[in-house]
Amino acid sequence: MDAAKGLEAPGETLEAQVKAFFDSAPPLQNSDEITQKLNQFIQRNSSPSSARRVVCVTSGGTTAPLEQRCVRYVDNFSSGHRGATSTEYFLKAGYAVIFLYRRRSFQPFCRSLPDDPLLECFKPTNESNIQVCEAYSEAVKRAIVDHHTAVAGGLLLKLPFSTIFEYLQMLQMIAMSMRCIGPRAMFYLAAAVSDYYVPWKDMVEHKIQSGSHLLDVKLVQVPKMLSVLRQDWAPLAFCISFKLETDSNILLNKAGGALEKYKMHAVVANELNTRKEQVVVVTSAEKVTVQCDKSRSDNDVENPLIKLLSEKHATYIEDSGR
Amino acid sequence: MDAAKGLEAPGETLEAQVKAFFDSAPPLQNSDEITQKLNQFIQRNSSPSSARRVVCVTSGGTTAPLEQRCVRYVDNFSSGHRGATSTEYFLKAGYAVIFLYRRRSFQPFCRSLPDDPLLECFKPTNESNIQVCEAYSEAVKRAIVDHHTAVAGGLLLKLPFSTIFEYLQMLQMIAMSMRCIGPRAMFYLAAAVSDYYVPWKDMVEHKIQSGSHLLDVKLVQVPKMLSVLRQDWAPLAFCISFKLETDSNILLNKAGGALEKYKMHAVVANELNTRKEQVVVVTSAEKVTVQCDKSRSDNDVENPLIKLLSEKHATYIEDSGR
Repeated sequence: MDAAKGLEAPGETLEAQVKAFFDSAPPLQNSDEITQKLNQFIQRNSSPSSARRVVCVTSGGTTAPLEQRCVRYVDNFSSGHRGATSTEYFLKAGYAVIFLYRRRSFQPFCRSLPDDPLLECFKPTNESNIQVCEAYSEAVKRAIVDHHTAVAGGLLLKLPFSTIFEYLQMLQMIAMSMRCIGPRAMFYLAAAVSDYYVPWKDMVEHKIQSGSHLLDVKLVQVPKMLSVLRQDWAPLAFCISFKLETDSNILLNKAGGALEKYKMHAVVANELNTRKEQVVVVTSAEKVTVQCDKSRSDNDVENPLIKLLSEKHATYIEDSGR
Repeated sequence: MDAAKGLEAPGETLEAQVKAFFDSAPPLQNSDEITQKLNQFIQRNSSPSSARRVVCVTSGGTTAPLEQRCVRYVDNFSSGHRGATSTEYFLKAGYAVIFLYRRRSFQPFCRSLPDDPLLECFKPTNESNIQVCEAYSEAVKRAIVDHHTAVAGGLLLKLPFSTIFEYLQMLQMIAMSMRCIGPRAMFYLAAAVSDYYVPWKDMVEHKIQSGSHLLDVKLVQVPKMLSVLRQDWAPLAFCISFKLETDSNILLNKAGGALEKYKMHAVVANELNTRKEQVVVVTSAEKVTVQCDKSRSDNDVENPLIKLLSEKHATYIEDSGR
C-alpha cells in the first residue's frame, strides 16, 4: 500500500514515482531469456562488417489490470497496424528491428490478411488436404516468406507483452541492451501506452464482486517514462514518440508539448480518423505533414514517414560523431 | 443523461434498467444481415427431415468502452477456450451451433494451434513457395477441414462481437430467432460478460485527457440480462450459465445463487486455476462434478460436460412435450 500512497503524493519526484512503479510490478517472466535474445540480436547487428542501425518499434495497446489474478483490466485501443507497417518499412530501409508488440496485435507482413488467416485464407480440397484460396494466394505467400526471411536472417526480433508492467519492464531491458550502439539506436514508440494503472499491491487478489450498483475504479497516473527513457535509459538514442488524439483542434499543441516535455527528437502527431492517410512530424525546427501517395502500390503513410525519420536519424548519427 | 440517471436509481425495475441499457446503446452495425443469417440458419436446421437441436454458445469476454470514439475500455479476461472447445463437442453431439464470439478469441477446431498459426505453422520452401511445418501438419489440416465442413454444412454460424452493447443486442436477436424451435433451443452462456458499463450517453466523445494525477472511472451495473433472457426472450429454451471465480471458497454458493436468481436450468461452476480439468454442474436437484478423463485422447472437460448437458436437454425436451 505504501507504493500507491507514495505515487499519490503530488510533490513526489519522477524518480521516486518510477521506483514505486517498478517496485510494485510483478516480476517479468523469462527475463533471462529475453536479455539473452536481446544481447545476441544487438551483437549480430553490430559486427564491424555489418553494423546496422537498430530500431525498437513498440506496437499495440497496453493493459492495466484491475485484479491480481487478472479477470478485468483497462485496455487501450490499438490494432498495432502502425507498428507492424512501420516495421516493414524500417526493414526495407536497412534497419534491424526489435518489435515490442501487444499479443495478438497486427504482425509485420500480415496486415493485408483477414482477421483469422488460417480459417479464412485456406480451404479443404478433400477430406484431408488443404490449399490456399486463390484470392489470398500471393498475400499469404508473401507474409510467410518475408516474415520468415526477416526473422531467420536475424533482422527482426519479436517480443510480446500484454500489461503496462511487462511493456515498461521490457522497454527498459531493450534500452539497456541497445546502449552499446549509441546514436545508431532509435526508439519508435508507436504503442498506445496506458496513462493510468492500479499499483499491483493495491489490487484485490480475487475477482471484484459485482454486488454493488456502482463500480468506482481509481487509477493513478503511470510515471512519464518517456523522460526516463530519454534521459536515463537511452540518452544517446534517437527517440520518436506518438501523439494520438480524436480531437484535431488540440493535436498539434499536444504534440509540441510532448516534444518539449520529454525532449523527444520528433513527435508524430496523428488524428484517429485520418491516421492512415496523414501524420505530422513535429520537431523543434519544423512541422512536416506526411501524406500517403495514392498513386503508388506501396501507398502507406508509413512509407514516406520512415524515409523522413531515417534521414533525420542519419543526420543525427553524423552530428553525434562530430 | 437521463438514461444514466435512471440506471442509478436503486429502486428501479429491471424492465426499466433494460430499456435504459438498450436505449443508450449505439445502433448495431449490419443488424439486417445478421437477422437474415439467423433466420436462414434456424430454418435450415428445423426442416422436418433434419430437425436438430440448436445451441447458442457465447464465448470470450465483452468490453465496456469508456469513450465513444473508443480508445480506452474495460475488458473482461477470457480467451474463449471454453466456448470454442464446447462448440466442437456440441457439433459432435449433433447440435447446430450459433457461435457468438469475441473478435480474435479462440475459434472452434483451432485451440491446439499456436497464437499466430499462419506465421508459426508454415514455412517457406524457397523464395515463393510455402508448406506446413511437419509438427503442425495434422492439426492445421484438421482445423481447416473440420471448421469448413461445419460452416459449409450449415451447422455452424459464427457471429463476432466486441462490446457489451453488441453482445447483448445480438444475444437478443438470436433469442428471438430461436423462439420458433421452443425447447429444442439451448443457451450455453460461456462468455465473460462485463458486470459494469458506462452508459453511452454519459461517455465523453473524445479521448479522456491524462492531465490529472488520478483517474476516477465510475461504472454502473449492467442489468441482469440472464433473467430477461430466461423470462422474456427465450422462455422455452434450456438455459445454462457459467460462474467463474478465483476464490473456490465462494464458488458453489455463488453458482447456487445464480441458479435461483436467474432461474437457469443449470449453472456451470468453475474456478480460474482448475477450469480446464474440472467443473461442477449445479442444478436445483444436484451438484455433479465433471472431470476430464486423462486416459483418453479427447480428454477435455468439455467432452463429459457436453454429454451431461445434452442428456439433460433431451430430458427437458421430452418433459416439455408431455
